[in-house]
Amino acid sequence: MSKAYVRLDKSQAAVLLVDHQAGLLSLVRDQDPDKFKNNVLALADLAKYFKLPTILTTSFESGPNGPLVPELKERFPDAPYIARPGNINAWDNEDFVKAVKATGKQQLILAGVVTEVCVAFPALSALAEGFDVFVVTDASGTFNEITRDAAWRRMEANGAQLMSWFGVACELHRDWRNDIEGLAALFSAHIPDYRNLITSYSTLTAAK
Amino acid sequence: MSKAYVRLDKSQAAVLLVDHQAGLLSLVRDQDPDKFKNNVLALADLAKYFKLPTILTTSFESGPNGPLVPELKERFPDAPYIARPGNINAWDNEDFVKAVKATGKQQLILAGVVTEVCVAFPALSALAEGFDVFVVTDASGTFNEITRDAAWRRMEANGAQLMSWFGVACELHRDWRNDIEGLAALFSAHIPDYRNLITSYSTLTAAK
Amino acid sequence: MSKAYVRLDKSQAAVLLVDHQAGLLSLVRDQDPDKFKNNVLALADLAKYFKLPTILTTSFESGPNGPLVPELKERFPDAPYIARPGNINAWDNEDFVKAVKATGKQQLILAGVVTEVCVAFPALSALAEGFDVFVVTDASGTFNEITRDAAWRRMEANGAQLMSWFGVACELHRDWRNDIEGLAALFSAHIPDYRNLITSYSTLTAAK
Amino acid sequence: MSKAYVRLDKSQAAVLLVDHQAGLLSLVRDQDPDKFKNNVLALADLAKYFKLPTILTTSFESGPNGPLVPELKERFPDAPYIARPGNINAWDNEDFVKAVKATGKQQLILAGVVTEVCVAFPALSALAEGFDVFVVTDASGTFNEITRDAAWRRMEANGAQLMSWFGVACELHRDWRNDIEGLAALFSAHIPDYRNLITSYSTLTAAK
Amino acid sequence: MSKAYVRLDKSQAAVLLVDHQAGLLSLVRDQDPDKFKNNVLALADLAKYFKLPTILTTSFESGPNGPLVPELKERFPDAPYIARPGNINAWDNEDFVKAVKATGKQQLILAGVVTEVCVAFPALSALAEGFDVFVVTDASGTFNEITRDAAWRRMEANGAQLMSWFGVACELHRDWRNDIEGLAALFSAHIPDYRNLITSYSTLTAAK
Amino acid sequence: MSKAYVRLDKSQAAVLLVDHQAGLLSLVRDQDPDKFKNNVLALADLAKYFKLPTILTTSFESGPNGPLVPELKERFPDAPYIARPGNINAWDNEDFVKAVKATGKQQLILAGVVTEVCVAFPALSALAEGFDVFVVTDASGTFNEITRDAAWRRMEANGAQLMSWFGVACELHRDWRNDIEGLAALFSAHIPDYRNLITSYSTLTAAK
Amino acid sequence: MSKAYVRLDKSQAAVLLVDHQAGLLSLVRDQDPDKFKNNVLALADLAKYFKLPTILTTSFESGPNGPLVPELKERFPDAPYIARPGNINAWDNEDFVKAVKATGKQQLILAGVVTEVCVAFPALSALAEGFDVFVVTDASGTFNEITRDAAWRRMEANGAQLMSWFGVACELHRDWRNDIEGLAALFSAHIPDYRNLITSYSTLTAAK
Amino acid sequence: MSKAYVRLDKSQAAVLLVDHQAGLLSLVRDQDPDKFKNNVLALADLAKYFKLPTILTTSFESGPNGPLVPELKERFPDAPYIARPGNINAWDNEDFVKAVKATGKQQLILAGVVTEVCVAFPALSALAEGFDVFVVTDASGTFNEITRDAAWRRMEANGAQLMSWFGVACELHRDWRNDIEGLAALFSAHIPDYRNLITSYSTLTAAK
Repeated sequence: MSKAYVRLDKSQAAVLLVDHQAGLLSLVRDQDPDKFKNNVLALADLAKYFKLPTILTTSFESGPNGPLVPELKERFPDAPYIARPGNINAWDNEDFVKAVKATGKQQLILAGVVTEVCVAFPALSALAEGFDVFVVTDASGTFNEITRDAAWRRMEANGAQLMSWFGVACELHRDWRNDIEGLAALFSAHIPDYRNLITSYSTLTAAK
Repeated sequence: MSKAYVRLDKSQAAVLLVDHQAGLLSLVRDQDPDKFKNNVLALADLAKYFKLPTILTTSFESGPNGPLVPELKERFPDAPYIARPGNINAWDNEDFVKAVKATGKQQLILAGVVTEVCVAFPALSALAEGFDVFVVTDASGTFNEITRDAAWRRMEANGAQLMSWFGVACELHRDWRNDIEGLAALFSAHIPDYRNLITSYSTLTAAK
Repeated sequence: MSKAYVRLDKSQAAVLLVDHQAGLLSLVRDQDPDKFKNNVLALADLAKYFKLPTILTTSFESGPNGPLVPELKERFPDAPYIARPGNINAWDNEDFVKAVKATGKQQLILAGVVTEVCVAFPALSALAEGFDVFVVTDASGTFNEITRDAAWRRMEANGAQLMSWFGVACELHRDWRNDIEGLAALFSAHIPDYRNLITSYSTLTAAK
Repeated sequence: MSKAYVRLDKSQAAVLLVDHQAGLLSLVRDQDPDKFKNNVLALADLAKYFKLPTILTTSFESGPNGPLVPELKERFPDAPYIARPGNINAWDNEDFVKAVKATGKQQLILAGVVTEVCVAFPALSALAEGFDVFVVTDASGTFNEITRDAAWRRMEANGAQLMSWFGVACELHRDWRNDIEGLAALFSAHIPDYRNLITSYSTLTAAK
Repeated sequence: MSKAYVRLDKSQAAVLLVDHQAGLLSLVRDQDPDKFKNNVLALADLAKYFKLPTILTTSFESGPNGPLVPELKERFPDAPYIARPGNINAWDNEDFVKAVKATGKQQLILAGVVTEVCVAFPALSALAEGFDVFVVTDASGTFNEITRDAAWRRMEANGAQLMSWFGVACELHRDWRNDIEGLAALFSAHIPDYRNLITSYSTLTAAK
Repeated sequence: MSKAYVRLDKSQAAVLLVDHQAGLLSLVRDQDPDKFKNNVLALADLAKYFKLPTILTTSFESGPNGPLVPELKERFPDAPYIARPGNINAWDNEDFVKAVKATGKQQLILAGVVTEVCVAFPALSALAEGFDVFVVTDASGTFNEITRDAAWRRMEANGAQLMSWFGVACELHRDWRNDIEGLAALFSAHIPDYRNLITSYSTLTAAK
Repeated sequence: MSKAYVRLDKSQAAVLLVDHQAGLLSLVRDQDPDKFKNNVLALADLAKYFKLPTILTTSFESGPNGPLVPELKERFPDAPYIARPGNINAWDNEDFVKAVKATGKQQLILAGVVTEVCVAFPALSALAEGFDVFVVTDASGTFNEITRDAAWRRMEANGAQLMSWFGVACELHRDWRNDIEGLAALFSAHIPDYRNLITSYSTLTAAK
Repeated sequence: MSKAYVRLDKSQAAVLLVDHQAGLLSLVRDQDPDKFKNNVLALADLAKYFKLPTILTTSFESGPNGPLVPELKERFPDAPYIARPGNINAWDNEDFVKAVKATGKQQLILAGVVTEVCVAFPALSALAEGFDVFVVTDASGTFNEITRDAAWRRMEANGAQLMSWFGVACELHRDWRNDIEGLAALFSAHIPDYRNLITSYSTLTAAK
């Protein structure tokens, strides 16, 4: 009856960021813009922090969908960057799949805009090929809650694991002792409440 | 462990619009009327755009449930139109099932009012006969969130895939290069935010 | 891949109303009191309308939980009425289980207060004994949404089907032609929007 | 088709309270602070009431996460208390797992802060080792609803049962006759509506 | 600095029910239909209970707005009933104003559908003529919260007093000793929570 | 004590549409995009229907704020159109104020994006010059509810009247008999629920 | 243009607690029960802390409204306690008004159940007699938000000042130096977040 | 009837930031932490951008309230910084009032934590002395919506103007031509949607 715990492992995981483009972001209405921006950048920062191979992809950048948001470009200047000429499902693009497979990783951490298309389609394709797929729900956005919930259920029914960027970070890190300051800096940069705790704590301990 | 991705294919799919009647629409309270109307017409327009065989059905049009909304009639003047004399589950009506089977399609894209009856009953019946059923959640409406959530779970537990009209359009289209202008026109007509992107984009590129 | 549609059948179904007591009702905060009261009475009225065997049960009526709400007593003067002296799970009470089995029905339509206890516990017990259990979600109430959602998932994971009173009525009725006026009267009494449709319709057709 | 009802049994259950620390509590925003505090203390009080073996654990108490909330310390002065030096997943800590196994219990009742990490990680680990895991959803808190929902689904997909502290108390107690006053006192202390019922009831019956 | 308390007085008050018509009610989306129907009937019942002169008016009953809801007709078979042929503001209709003035009352208790038109327009007109206007907010309905809030502010800025049917009943009654059973019956019929209190109370006191 | 009712009069009113630009619309998050778009177009259509002088103005069309939405341009090809080169408050622009004064109207019906700037600033300026200002709340949008509420209060404290497009239409029309079909067409085009009423009504009366 | 700041002064203020009865509390649905209970007790505790004269009053304790909640009785064993035999407006009861005037205070801090009756009626009466009235909004409860908002507006229009228990405590205290520990203990007992801050702070400073 | 528009003027305005301390921020629950942090920093950045005299003040930094958030200290290294030893109302502190008066400004832009105390008290005091007070609602936070609404009403009733940081920036700037790039940079840094507009715009115009 026991069920294996398929757990993120930093030696086994890659990050796929799909279609976080300036135009498409204006479609995201299931999360507040301030919070959503923060979640996307937190995921990017954790990918860097854990040195996970990361792949960027966009659709139709030259059209109304707009360019990739510059903060992602800046964080991953050397990452594979697949500007898909037309495939809606990134997995239908050979270059993208090649890049994914070139990482040699079994665990795919996936986020994008909009959830039911740019996230769900490659998630379902990757699951069909036997990958473990971890959807970062709070770094993915869409039109409204109805659309999001339907997309989550479709992915979950096919075996995707639903997570948040914070859960991903913690599951990858395993033990604070691996690097206390690094992880605290990551949390402090993206969780205002955590930053406040650290500010108060640091002030008090410095005062000793 | 890998699980097949049962994916919409425009050569394999038919659309079933069940009981979008003027009277019954006043029962829909889980979505805002403006948004719901837009979603229903978006689904109709995508059915036309992809030239999917489409079937209309109603129950008791001559009674308080009221006539089919005229926008649907206008869009599908030649579609099979089954005005059921009494069956609540459309699948209990032989003419309806015949019309569905006459399309020769394996994938049924289904929406209606109200979700837990007019959508869920034929969905469960069709699943029992081996069809692939894709419920368009945002083009289906009902009394409240409790009722909707219960209906979603019942359908999902029996194998229905929950989608949105936007996801359906994207999964059918596969590649923007198949027809950029057509798909953009569909989105522009039904997603105000997307229309704004196109307006700004067109103005700027025209100004060059 | 096709999955059987386990469908309510009025010759196979019984209704179990668990702990709708005056005191316990003040604990229900996941639904508005006006709406919840209406849903419970709608379920009772449909049980009468379809002449389904109905069983009432309460816990500790003489204590702070309070007496069964009088509207239910009035509707089912001759129904088995099991005032449990102490069992929290109604299924732990031999008289209750005997009464259920005495109906000879395989399909149990179940509602109560509070959802995660008075509904979930007998639902799980009945499922374990092989009954088909249909939970009437909107005629069941509890403290808040968190509690309700957790209870729904637990029941669903064990095979319960989640429904609403309206869905139950429609699935039992099958065909409007079985009795148009009776079903319309049931809906009219418990769905204000439907009543308005009928009022307008009747006035207009009477005016001819 | 029938499915066993895995039911809490007070002779088989232990309670694990994970990381309810003063600093981390400021991160909890999916529940109101008054309500959340009440739920956590209710779970603690029921653990004491049913004399369930209870294990406390914290991470980094000396840092910004802050100390265990004093109300828990006071209630369980003699409970195993594992202050983890670094493991994020409590199950990665040998002392914690030893303490759990030393209870000799098969059923683990689990709550903590934050849900997707401190609850979900040990839940998934314990399920993988064959334990029955009951997550107390309302005594667990996290950043927001998106994060919570994703965490619930991940645990549920691996076999965790989602409950509330009230459901846990009722399932453990089985029969009011085991101790009417004790259970009523527990409810009265943590459910204002129930307390009001008892106040009115006691006053009226005392007036006789 | 002290400000006079303009207080409802049953010898000084009349009730105006404006456009509660079967068709128009389907436009009301700022309140749940069950709750709204209950509020409207509660107001009607209190008008009868306090024997306040009551005036019914409708617009375009023969068109899509539909007939007055039958429950109101039944309660006030002899009340002045002004079916306005076209005036949107009831106060623009001479018969209506005559009927109001014929009551000889200074205090007008007003409710209707939709709030910003059928309630606000006559409220502003009556205030301009020096009447005291008490708007029954929960027996008035409209499209959404934005519309309602704007309407409330406009009326309030001109001197209308905003109340609820329960507040109106209490302010008119003044003292329970005037008639305990009558007022309790009114509350019991329209406040499920109050009915539950009475049910528990009556059972306990009867048991003595 | 009586207070004059300052009432919209179609011979005295002009409509000012401020900064409904494709880029700025992506900032509007206090209303759903489908609903907001509908409200803006409804206001435009009523301005046309009542033949009210209408003035369009924009800020920085050539920059990221984007062009005026084409639907407004199309509806008012001959209206004064003031593309402000830099003034944030339209009232600081001489051409705009001239155009307003050239209408010779005392009553200004005002809507725009975003509410606390593009609507509130000219509203406060116009009020200071003695105009009657009617803010169309549902055809104005902004970042969130906090921002909107603060803006409403500031305008209201200075004497603005808060309305909705539906209230404006009804107050201008005064009497259905002035033109039943025209007003019904306006409502039918912008209120799905009203359209449904008309559909059912027309079908039933045509069937006679 | 400057406006006097009418500020709570502990030498000038009395507290009036109206109808916080066990039965009536089940009617309160505009606040969560846990939070509301906490707010009422916080107000009571601050009244004791600042040694403000406090008056308790109830209506119909012997009937379904139920007894005063015991926590209030215990906190004020010697306070004037006016059990009104029938007056709905406490100010209509001579004993109550006498008790209020006997305090010799000009500032009345008022809370009760339900807001639009038990709070609003005596508030309006007291304002009419020239008292300064401070309504403690979060220690007052009622049926729903619509009812609450209408009640707030009615009181505010007559000059009541709307506050919260926390604001009342801070305005009365003026300066932390008057008693740091006492105020911190009050906050710690009723604001879980504040208690957490103090717990972390105390632990860290004790560790020095 | 016309009412003067009291308008922010950058030569007349000062900014007061009250008690944005790391500990107190954990009490803020009426806004999401990500959004609230962004609003506070946006206000700080606009104060710097417009070179407005800015005053910082805190209460009890050495205690559990915690230190001023470091981002504010960094932005205003030379600003008057009044660490109040005990006064809850900053205006009760002589140094604070001196610092305010030393700016020589008549218009006070005010934000703080928590709204009903740290903002409302000095706002009411400053209004009483004849200052014009502009409350930045979205850079002020508190426990919940009830508390916030009551605080807003109290301040508004005494003449405060309620604004948002965006409205403040626009009213101070007056005309984009004063500095397009500077204002755009401010918006881009704090409004993700605006940043996206600029990203798309810049890319498209750069591509020409």
